Amino acid sequence: MVNVGIIGATGYAGEELIGILLKHPGARLADISAKIDQPRPIGKFFPKFAGRIDLVCAEPDIKKINNTCDLVFLALPHTVSLRIAPKLLSAGKRVIDLSADYRLKDAKVYEKFYQLKHTDSGRLSEAVYGLPEIYRAKIKSARLVANPGCYPTAGILALSPLLALGLAETGAVIIDAKSGVTGAGRKLAEGFLFSEINEDFRAYKVNFHQHAPEIDQELSKLAGKKIKVTFVPHLLPLSRGILETIYVKRAQSAPFGGVPRQARGSARGKQRKAQNLIKLYKRFYQKEPFVRIREEGDFPRIKDVAGTNFCDIGIKDCGDSVIIIAAIDNLLKGAAGQAVQNMNIMCGFPEETALL
Amino acid sequence: MVNVGIIGATGYAGEELIGILLKHPGARLADISAKIDQPRPIGKFFPKFAGRIDLVCAEPDIKKINNTCDLVFLALPHTVSLRIAPKLLSAGKRVIDLSADYRLKDAKVYEKFYQLKHTDSGRLSEAVYGLPEIYRAKIKSARLVANPGCYPTAGILALSPLLALGLAETGAVIIDAKSGVTGAGRKLAEGFLFSEINEDFRAYKVNFHQHAPEIDQELSKLAGKKIKVTFVPHLLPLSRGILETIYVKRAQSAPFGGVPRQARGSARGKQRKAQNLIKLYKRFYQKEPFVRIREEGDFPRIKDVAGTNFCDIGIKDCGDSVIIIAAIDNLLKGAAGQAVQNMNIMCGFPEETALL
Amino acid sequence: MVNVGIIGATGYAGEELIGILLKHPGARLADISAKIDQPRPIGKFFPKFAGRIDLVCAEPDIKKINNTCDLVFLALPHTVSLRIAPKLLSAGKRVIDLSADYRLKDAKVYEKFYQLKHTDSGRLSEAVYGLPEIYRAKIKSARLVANPGCYPTAGILALSPLLALGLAETGAVIIDAKSGVTGAGRKLAEGFLFSEINEDFRAYKVNFHQHAPEIDQELSKLAGKKIKVTFVPHLLPLSRGILETIYVKRAQSAPFGGVPRQARGSARGKQRKAQNLIKLYKRFYQKEPFVRIREEGDFPRIKDVAGTNFCDIGIKDCGDSVIIIAAIDNLLKGAAGQAVQNMNIMCGFPEETALL
Amino acid sequence: MVNVGIIGATGYAGEELIGILLKHPGARLADISAKIDQPRPIGKFFPKFAGRIDLVCAEPDIKKINNTCDLVFLALPHTVSLRIAPKLLSAGKRVIDLSADYRLKDAKVYEKFYQLKHTDSGRLSEAVYGLPEIYRAKIKSARLVANPGCYPTAGILALSPLLALGLAETGAVIIDAKSGVTGAGRKLAEGFLFSEINEDFRAYKVNFHQHAPEIDQELSKLAGKKIKVTFVPHLLPLSRGILETIYVKRAQSAPFGGVPRQARGSARGKQRKAQNLIKLYKRFYQKEPFVRIREEGDFPRIKDVAGTNFCDIGIKDCGDSVIIIAAIDNLLKGAAGQAVQNMNIMCGFPEETALL
Repeated sequence: MVNVGIIGATGYAGEELIGILLKHPGARLADISAKIDQPRPIGKFFPKFAGRIDLVCAEPDIKKINNTCDLVFLALPHTVSLRIAPKLLSAGKRVIDLSADYRLKDAKVYEKFYQLKHTDSGRLSEAVYGLPEIYRAKIKSARLVANPGCYPTAGILALSPLLALGLAETGAVIIDAKSGVTGAGRKLAEGFLFSEINEDFRAYKVNFHQHAPEIDQELSKLAGKKIKVTFVPHLLPLSRGILETIYVKRAQSAPFGGVPRQARGSARGKQRKAQNLIKLYKRFYQKEPFVRIREEGDFPRIKDVAGTNFCDIGIKDCGDSVIIIAAIDNLLKGAAGQAVQNMNIMCGFPEETALL
Repeated sequence: MVNVGIIGATGYAGEELIGILLKHPGARLADISAKIDQPRPIGKFFPKFAGRIDLVCAEPDIKKINNTCDLVFLALPHTVSLRIAPKLLSAGKRVIDLSADYRLKDAKVYEKFYQLKHTDSGRLSEAVYGLPEIYRAKIKSARLVANPGCYPTAGILALSPLLALGLAETGAVIIDAKSGVTGAGRKLAEGFLFSEINEDFRAYKVNFHQHAPEIDQELSKLAGKKIKVTFVPHLLPLSRGILETIYVKRAQSAPFGGVPRQARGSARGKQRKAQNLIKLYKRFYQKEPFVRIREEGDFPRIKDVAGTNFCDIGIKDCGDSVIIIAAIDNLLKGAAGQAVQNMNIMCGFPEETALL
Repeated sequence: MVNVGIIGATGYAGEELIGILLKHPGARLADISAKIDQPRPIGKFFPKFAGRIDLVCAEPDIKKINNTCDLVFLALPHTVSLRIAPKLLSAGKRVIDLSADYRLKDAKVYEKFYQLKHTDSGRLSEAVYGLPEIYRAKIKSARLVANPGCYPTAGILALSPLLALGLAETGAVIIDAKSGVTGAGRKLAEGFLFSEINEDFRAYKVNFHQHAPEIDQELSKLAGKKIKVTFVPHLLPLSRGILETIYVKRAQSAPFGGVPRQARGSARGKQRKAQNLIKLYKRFYQKEPFVRIREEGDFPRIKDVAGTNFCDIGIKDCGDSVIIIAAIDNLLKGAAGQAVQNMNIMCGFPEETALL
Repeated sequence: MVNVGIIGATGYAGEELIGILLKHPGARLADISAKIDQPRPIGKFFPKFAGRIDLVCAEPDIKKINNTCDLVFLALPHTVSLRIAPKLLSAGKRVIDLSADYRLKDAKVYEKFYQLKHTDSGRLSEAVYGLPEIYRAKIKSARLVANPGCYPTAGILALSPLLALGLAETGAVIIDAKSGVTGAGRKLAEGFLFSEINEDFRAYKVNFHQHAPEIDQELSKLAGKKIKVTFVPHLLPLSRGILETIYVKRAQSAPFGGVPRQARGSARGKQRKAQNLIKLYKRFYQKEPFVRIREEGDFPRIKDVAGTNFCDIGIKDCGDSVIIIAAIDNLLKGAAGQAVQNMNIMCGFPEETALL
């Protein structure tokens, strides 16, 4: 039985963490805390948990947390994790940080995009980027896991096979991303009021969102060369879910799926190619419990993954280009679900525990 | 041409006022102001008005407003109108106040429900309650119109015929009211964030909402005796519209519609009664341009009135009781539309001007 | 391990049943069927289940179902259950019917409200109304459980304590009910198109909904006398959840909570009364795992119960009258969740299994 | 006064046409028809028009329409216009067709994308594509106007300046389009039920939507060479509005805005370029009443154009590529509003009449 703490329990990701961990047979919620005015039972914050959990949520008391927990989830705004994680780590606790603070390996990039000094850059090399599909082995023994951002999770999973295999032109990757509103956290800003979001749809941070360098970092590693994606996020009038529509040019020298050029043009050739790309994706992810590849002509909807920890991916091979559509639940595979998936890996539980 | 000012132009009611007045052939928007950080063209606040209006929105400058306007709309939070209206009235301006400040004739009731001292109670007797269907004659010459609340507008219009004619038991009126979110104004509170309202529905201020005494005041006048309604408002996950489902007991001594008791029970008798009640309502509102009574078995939906200045009313006669369903657009007939209807009456324009 | 079948698996309730049963450690999904054009893996209908379950969904084959299942859920439109349940029961299977076919004890009432002949009225006396809070003992050994309607579940739970204890005037119960759209099933009608429901709210079947006699039947039994509630359902622009606002007059002879009349009027008296009613409700439901009573001044929202099997109840004691607000998830406590709760009781599993 | 008919009045576009024409001082609604079971006053179909218009909506009677109308709007599904338009035109009526039937100049392309024989291809050359910003002069005297599709309206307006001026690489235009649900019309299909659309978001017809060839046709004309855009439409969970995010590569030989290459890289250079592109767009559309170009860093939201006839366009110059975001109301500038704009041009009314 692992004793688990959640710091930042009153946000959307914290709420999901509580819900998942209440179902987890191997984890015991030992401490729940958040920046709040006064301590209250967690069932008062989230009446849906009333009667199911007795813990009182109070301001985080690091000493108490270190005394009662083996592993701590930080569901905090960025920069706050920077102040708290070191105190837990130095007490020998394992930490899964859902903020952006330890995701970017280059502190300068962090400082550019978050407009803040990185105060714990010494730990960046130790921190493991918590995308199990790529870093499972390292996660197993990690002390500090940097849980990926929601947009990067979908984008990296959608693009990894193409880039790892050198099939895409690295200079022309476009991610048109759409997210539900919980992606922004429980942020008290006019733009997130119901009457502003409802019946509206808008782009924001057009090509300068802070998740872009996170995607760039991981795709560049996979491709073995510097990649800078074009990334435009949009805000959907719905609560949870991300769908990314991704446009890629095929690499000039390497025909997708190894299909000979002469086969192209004919309908049969096209079908074969698509099958090949899909087959290639299926093979790439064949052992992954939470990545599902769609058949040809079939694309994921947000509804297919909402409330689940899956990332569903559909692929359209257009010959010289490829369109990839990926969907996740931003609060699960994009945050709390992936965090528990990481915990399961770290603690030796079956990876799906409490996630199906 | 009437020169018109709007104070509080950046809220939802202010936005509607601008939209309506831009279409009004007899009104000229002369001044637009609001509590804001720095002056900006109104098209910057509301890009939908960009290119259609040049006015800059700034902090209200009463002197300037008095110099340029003949009539001023106050789309302000309550208590703020109390500070501003007197300065306009004493300069001879006509004022239509959309706040609650001059609606309740009894300052003590105001102070109880709004938890504030009323600082201009001397003007309460002069203020005309701006419900044209009841006070049209007084509105015509009014200097200060207290534009009704959104819930009261629907509730009073739905109940007036029954109560004015002594057909309802005054001690058993229940209003189960449901409102879209703009009813609360552009309020920056956690409870109004998209992710809190979306896919949710809740009651609030259960039987102690500040609009109840407003309804009580007007229904009591009509009935000639003290009425205290049971009033439970709810918050709908949609932007605009109010629907009220109203439950009334029939008065013991006065059979509805004058139907003799022996006729009841038979299907024919029931139908006749319903027709009679509906006929009675139609007669009551026959000259009203913005009240529509439905045929038997037909009830209004929010969609039927959203974007319009109509109040639609459906009636079900259940014998000993009556169910009335009324719908309005809370921002139009429940606020800005009714305010312009009042302006039209005050200034001698055809009452429907800019409202159809 | 109980082998379970679902007939009608492609509707909303069927979808929920699959989701719950996939998590159930003691149940094995043995057969999934529905009225469909051609057999397809269930993961094709519901991509969210892809990769989690291999069963093919086909037209129901009663013989095969009888051979492979111990217990069968009927998630069917009414009248269809009437044709299928007898064939399962006569083969010795236990049946939980989510349709309305076996809920009303009086076939004539069924025939009046559903406009159809009841073809299996002989089994009505055997069928157990599947509301565990009232009929747990009978459910335990039942062969045929009539799973309650969604509106009745919330309404009966909200009113049972008052009526069982003789505290309410039985002639004046008003239920103003609001439901999310899945309550209507996956019905292909213009009125349920997105553009018709979105940003709309409407009443329907005003005081003649088929769930009213179900509520009347159960409340009458509890009160020991004939009750006919006023019941007005409304359609909310959201997917799941029911909230009912219920207005009750107190019985003349029996002061609520046994508070002496002289105590009323004073604030202290009022508070005491409210506490007494709430205390009374808490006592009534003290052993119930899925009924939660709110503290004074606190009322449930749909968000508090959506995705759960709970019924949350808030109470406002107004002296001569009481306002009760109850919320459930229409697809869980109002359908599939309650059905599995019944299965758990029937099969000896802990009642919460797979429901938390 | 122009006598106007609407065939297909009960769909979403028809509903909008009625609403607009009721406000039009120079047009008289002379005939309203649709494919319906039996004639009913239009106020019965759309209660929001009750009391405002007396016309009965019946099956179209071409003779009667030809006798009473000068100009007819066809708000019909494609192929139905093909049967009706010729009968009106041969009687000398002017026709504005909102269907796709006369938009594509090449009948073979129509037949490929609509999977139907084109039965009136002889009139394709006469039909004027009703995008006033490009074809105003021709529309003036047109007898048959093919009102553009909603997606093409936004896409063509967003791309015209770049392509007309040779600034874009014609082989690499990507349109990621998102539309509200009314875009699909009042279509009775399971996929358009509220519970399917709500809280969901999905791509559909990935790169084979029938609006793509319409965009290709017009952009190719402007560019003077064959263009084939990559076009992926998505379905938003909201009623009205389209937002398109468009990705363009700059033409190699023609630096955007004529900025010398050496200026690039520096912040000042970037700003200048962006201003230049925006300036260029503003100049291109300077006389257009319904196209608004945003300042740098400012992008349109659906909310800014919903309920209006405007197309708002924002531009981000990324150096080697450009991101353009365009928004319209799919039922107004994308259908009924543009149709009335065309009528205004054809009949000599001020172009904004009834559209502001």
